[in-house]
Amino acid sequence: MSSNVNAVLMDQQEIEAIQQELGKPSLMGVSLDALIRDTDNYLALPIDVPGHSPAGGYAHNKHQQNYKYIDQAGRLFLITGEEKYAQFAADLLTQYADKYLALGFQVQRNTNPPGRLFHQMLNEHVWLLYSSLGYSCIKHWLTEEQRQHIESQLFEPMLEVATVKYDFDFDRIHNHGVWAVAATAACGAAIGQEKYIDLALHGLAGDDIQGGFLAQLSNLFAPSGYYIEGPYYHRYAIRPLCLLAELTQRFRPELDIFNFKGQVIAKTIQSLLSTAYPNGVFPSLNDASKSMDIKDEGVVIAVSLYAKHYPEDKNLYGIAKIQEQIWISGCGVALSQAYQAQESVEVPCLPSVELNEGPDGDKGAQGFIRMQNSKGDISQLVMNYGQHGMGHGHFDTLGMTYFNNNQEVLRDYGFGRWVNIEPKFGGRYLDENKSYARQTIAHNLVSVDAGCQNNFDVDTADSKHGVPHFFIGEGKVQAMSAYAYDFYPGVDQQRSLVLVEHQQLEKPLLIDLFRLISEEAHQYDYSLQYQGQIIRTNIEHKQHATLNPMGDDFGYQHLWNESEGPAQDTSLVSWLQGSSYYTWLSAASTDDTVFFTRTGANDPSFNLRSETSLILRRQAKNALFANVIETHGYFNESVEASLDARGKVHSINVVGFNDDATVVEILADDFALTVMVNNKLNATEQSQSTIEFNNTTYSWQGFVAVETKGS
Amino acid sequence: MSSNVNAVLMDQQEIEAIQQELGKPSLMGVSLDALIRDTDNYLALPIDVPGHSPAGGYAHNKHQQNYKYIDQAGRLFLITGEEKYAQFAADLLTQYADKYLALGFQVQRNTNPPGRLFHQMLNEHVWLLYSSLGYSCIKHWLTEEQRQHIESQLFEPMLEVATVKYDFDFDRIHNHGVWAVAATAACGAAIGQEKYIDLALHGLAGDDIQGGFLAQLSNLFAPSGYYIEGPYYHRYAIRPLCLLAELTQRFRPELDIFNFKGQVIAKTIQSLLSTAYPNGVFPSLNDASKSMDIKDEGVVIAVSLYAKHYPEDKNLYGIAKIQEQIWISGCGVALSQAYQAQESVEVPCLPSVELNEGPDGDKGAQGFIRMQNSKGDISQLVMNYGQHGMGHGHFDTLGMTYFNNNQEVLRDYGFGRWVNIEPKFGGRYLDENKSYARQTIAHNLVSVDAGCQNNFDVDTADSKHGVPHFFIGEGKVQAMSAYAYDFYPGVDQQRSLVLVEHQQLEKPLLIDLFRLISEEAHQYDYSLQYQGQIIRTNIEHKQHATLNPMGDDFGYQHLWNESEGPAQDTSLVSWLQGSSYYTWLSAASTDDTVFFTRTGANDPSFNLRSETSLILRRQAKNALFANVIETHGYFNESVEASLDARGKVHSINVVGFNDDATVVEILADDFALTVMVNNKLNATEQSQSTIEFNNTTYSWQGFVAVETKGS
Repeated sequence: MSSNVNAVLMDQQEIEAIQQELGKPSLMGVSLDALIRDTDNYLALPIDVPGHSPAGGYAHNKHQQNYKYIDQAGRLFLITGEEKYAQFAADLLTQYADKYLALGFQVQRNTNPPGRLFHQMLNEHVWLLYSSLGYSCIKHWLTEEQRQHIESQLFEPMLEVATVKYDFDFDRIHNHGVWAVAATAACGAAIGQEKYIDLALHGLAGDDIQGGFLAQLSNLFAPSGYYIEGPYYHRYAIRPLCLLAELTQRFRPELDIFNFKGQVIAKTIQSLLSTAYPNGVFPSLNDASKSMDIKDEGVVIAVSLYAKHYPEDKNLYGIAKIQEQIWISGCGVALSQAYQAQESVEVPCLPSVELNEGPDGDKGAQGFIRMQNSKGDISQLVMNYGQHGMGHGHFDTLGMTYFNNNQEVLRDYGFGRWVNIEPKFGGRYLDENKSYARQTIAHNLVSVDAGCQNNFDVDTADSKHGVPHFFIGEGKVQAMSAYAYDFYPGVDQQRSLVLVEHQQLEKPLLIDLFRLISEEAHQYDYSLQYQGQIIRTNIEHKQHATLNPMGDDFGYQHLWNESEGPAQDTSLVSWLQGSSYYTWLSAASTDDTVFFTRTGANDPSFNLRSETSLILRRQAKNALFANVIETHGYFNESVEASLDARGKVHSINVVGFNDDATVVEILADDFALTVMVNNKLNATEQSQSTIEFNNTTYSWQGFVAVETKGS
Repeated sequence: MSSNVNAVLMDQQEIEAIQQELGKPSLMGVSLDALIRDTDNYLALPIDVPGHSPAGGYAHNKHQQNYKYIDQAGRLFLITGEEKYAQFAADLLTQYADKYLALGFQVQRNTNPPGRLFHQMLNEHVWLLYSSLGYSCIKHWLTEEQRQHIESQLFEPMLEVATVKYDFDFDRIHNHGVWAVAATAACGAAIGQEKYIDLALHGLAGDDIQGGFLAQLSNLFAPSGYYIEGPYYHRYAIRPLCLLAELTQRFRPELDIFNFKGQVIAKTIQSLLSTAYPNGVFPSLNDASKSMDIKDEGVVIAVSLYAKHYPEDKNLYGIAKIQEQIWISGCGVALSQAYQAQESVEVPCLPSVELNEGPDGDKGAQGFIRMQNSKGDISQLVMNYGQHGMGHGHFDTLGMTYFNNNQEVLRDYGFGRWVNIEPKFGGRYLDENKSYARQTIAHNLVSVDAGCQNNFDVDTADSKHGVPHFFIGEGKVQAMSAYAYDFYPGVDQQRSLVLVEHQQLEKPLLIDLFRLISEEAHQYDYSLQYQGQIIRTNIEHKQHATLNPMGDDFGYQHLWNESEGPAQDTSLVSWLQGSSYYTWLSAASTDDTVFFTRTGANDPSFNLRSETSLILRRQAKNALFANVIETHGYFNESVEASLDARGKVHSINVVGFNDDATVVEILADDFALTVMVNNKLNATEQSQSTIEFNNTTYSWQGFVAVETKGS
């Protein structure tokens, strides 16, 4: 092999640095070992370059594997010097070059134009990006004739499809557009046609406004770095973003891409990481799977890239520890070396953070509160009071999820999709994604009049956003509050979430104050999506002898009404999830009704997962749902141990609520809490509140106060 | 500390051998480290000796923890020499001695008489056993006055309750009886009153017949070592059995207990181990939890004991690897040293085995077939054709479960019980254990006329057993077949299970031929308990708009009828469980009906887990349910990968069946199988069968033959 190779994303110095780690127990060594084993397994299979199949079908999967291993084999050729890798990548690329122009375009299946290899250009761009990077690693090893064949029959035609045939779809400001420009730049760099790099960076129009990477970087992210479609799509967009950023730094260093627009690349990486639950799984904000996590390749690349190009952030080491791998690249070498230099690396408790939304950061926000207990367990609270999220948006403004004990407790259903499972509608979004998963009732919040926020109208929803009230992200009382105005006609909403550490409790107490404001009477359904086994309840509920759906529209048609009964002054339901008990207590009255539901109604193809929820229904004009969630006890069936299955909190009472303030009392075995929230939008940390409810005067400073009585 | 300590189960030489392992990475060192950390955590808590509470309540749990840590602290005192451990055990025992006689007896809650500490003597015996062993470790460190107090106020009165007050319940031949005699012997040995050792060994009557350890050893186990109540209760009985065996060897070596009755102790340990799934979890035969596994303390003790006292069995090392711990004792030292001497230890694929039942081994059997594929994955098939199992028996003779990919695929519900969860009926067996979990329909087999085997009558069921036909436990075609006569009036049953390895398939193919024989027409419900998401089916089923229970008795009242439709010639249902796809294909006709069910009906307290089943219903006199279960493909949502979601087998046809033989054909994409079973009870491996069905003659030798066509 040549003594001075310069692949698109790996130069000779980097190759040598990576070689140093072969066989070592460093992050790089371990990642390399995994890459070699994985690649060798694929090399042992017969080469196949198939034609067309639906998403999730054989050909689709095979094309995906092929690009992945062209890239991996290319890199391993440079790192190990073993020609089998070069030969394999060359054979595959040659067969693609033989076939590509002979393959017709697939049938279009969605708004994304079809490619020759895949049913949508998105996948074709991913293929082109990886195959180009792999090609750049073996190019010097090929004969001129081979290079000619591959470039003229495969890469140049693919660039032509991307930038000419589908020019209208090429460089737009959207997550798909980032893949397109990254692929085009990588291919241009690989075949030595740098004009494609410039098209990719500056757009077809060359104005850095209508399209291209710089325009995308300028417009896709909020000042906080948050991406409107949520972490699931963000982690997908960040992969080409980081690859193209790295390419840009190498080919157009004068752009100083890592400092571009106030270090937007650093910000958006940090923003993405800061959404993740403590176990690394992303909360499913908007359409998202329940298991996408920071081990995703895009996030692995992003963390390595950050470590190389930005000042040290020690939390990254803990994140890399969860990822258990790095990007095998020069960036990865930097991370691996810094990681090895640490005395010890712990999984981090990331700081609580409020991520603003919108190009100017004024379209609401996403709130993330974290609290770690003395045993290291991290509770995380997520509240959505930002934007809707366009076509993948769920109608759940003011919705929340809650995580502790290594599991999501108050859950989001995620998307209605069996991704890549071909017999399930080709792995695409199912009808139930619209009819259930995106509906308000599928989330943890209040549905009004058995309807959906903004009447399930995307345009209306995109025109609105939550209004942040306050966010307190430090200390033993953390809290966030926000408003949603007119998401239902004539109804305004405010939600205040308070997480309180208390010495009598192993885990923080979650207090949820959900306020509805209306001049007319409405039906309010406060719902919690839980998972596990009901352990006890004080609701005298009657299980239905025959089950009927909860309604006929807006997701209610998918909920079986399993059981219902009149609420209690403090309604209580406990359940067991995993090794932990949870108790929900809610201030209510016997005029209210508690429902126990399960998804599965009107689901003739078993497309939905079977999941459970609690719904507290109230008829009112103004209303406050005042709730406590206590995490308590321990259960381990295999050793037959159960501790504290009942919990300590026994009641929650609403003292009073209005536009000025909300005051509730929480009574537990050995202590009592008074929670006071300032509801005025113009409040500050210095605001003094004094309010009288039931002849008692309550005074406090700031947005929220929690007073404790008892031990 | 004394230089020549002799605790009941640890002498000076053993103590020193254990001390050698402190801080080492050996099994003993790691187990010691865990024991020290666990014990130190408990020592850091305030000492509390409470009064009474229900099972699962605070006092119940605290008494359980106290005995455990008296024993652990006692052993750690001897091993580490640290007096804090002796002081802790002494303080606890003294407080128990202060309180024990002042505590009244609890209220009796079941057939087990109540103790002073616990609601049943069973728990009191466990307490006595462990506390006695702990006491024997610190006795020499105590003052004479302390010893006097503890022995006269605690141990002697406890022995009196066990052997005099409840003499009728003391030494009976039952798993509870083993705890009683082990506790009595240990306490007698600890306080130097060896008469209790002899009472324990030979029974109150002293005749080795009516009761006592030797009578228990002689009568509790089948010649195979199988224990009638199944592995869940077996692993509970084996703990006192092994502790008392070790004590017997030390105090009555002349009994040569480890060779007693043809090495019954070795046999019953091997028998218990041989039931476990590859991940170490026990199949839930009869009342049992779904998570009890070989990490249970009794099994850990048994494996260490076996390693010390019996010839080497290399599979034990793999089992110890799953257990990740050993018994901290002289036996454990032996196992740890032998383990460390191995070059490498792999999780074993235990041999297939048929375990006979009944004192003479002629009351049927339990069959366990295992097959390991080239990637190391083990498929395990369990079929129950033995005894009923007395009061904990399930009515599921000819029932089966199936395991692969590290999960139970065709599942047993287990018991209806939330063990030790106090708000769930004190953690005791729930009504739903009888009304659902023990019923035939809750299992993987055929229910006749929507009823239960033996009409759910325990006495009738105990008087019957399955009749083994054949068992083939080696090779690429393994199989077992058995009959059940008259478990339903006028209906005989035969089930033949065949597990076939085929080069076209990654995992073995399971073929299930369930034959019903009757002169009258009946309704036959063939049911499979699966878990996961339905992926596809060729049944044109109609989901019900309102859900009704499947029936009103025999467990059917707990099943929601979610959807139903007419069967196909080959009915096909695929589902996804974990990372694997499964497809069930069954030969049927449009006269049959397929139901999709879910538990939860008539369950007003949410006592049942929500689980799913498939039921194929047929009206017939003689019938054959001919089924294939194919395991195929791979799904990983977090990396969005799906392979082979459809499988290769597409049909199964019944060629013919009668009392002589059963022949079926299975057609797959690239191959076909003909499966031929000899149904004659007097068949042998040498039997030549020739039978004509549809003008075709089928000939084979032995019990079963599988012919392959195609690649």
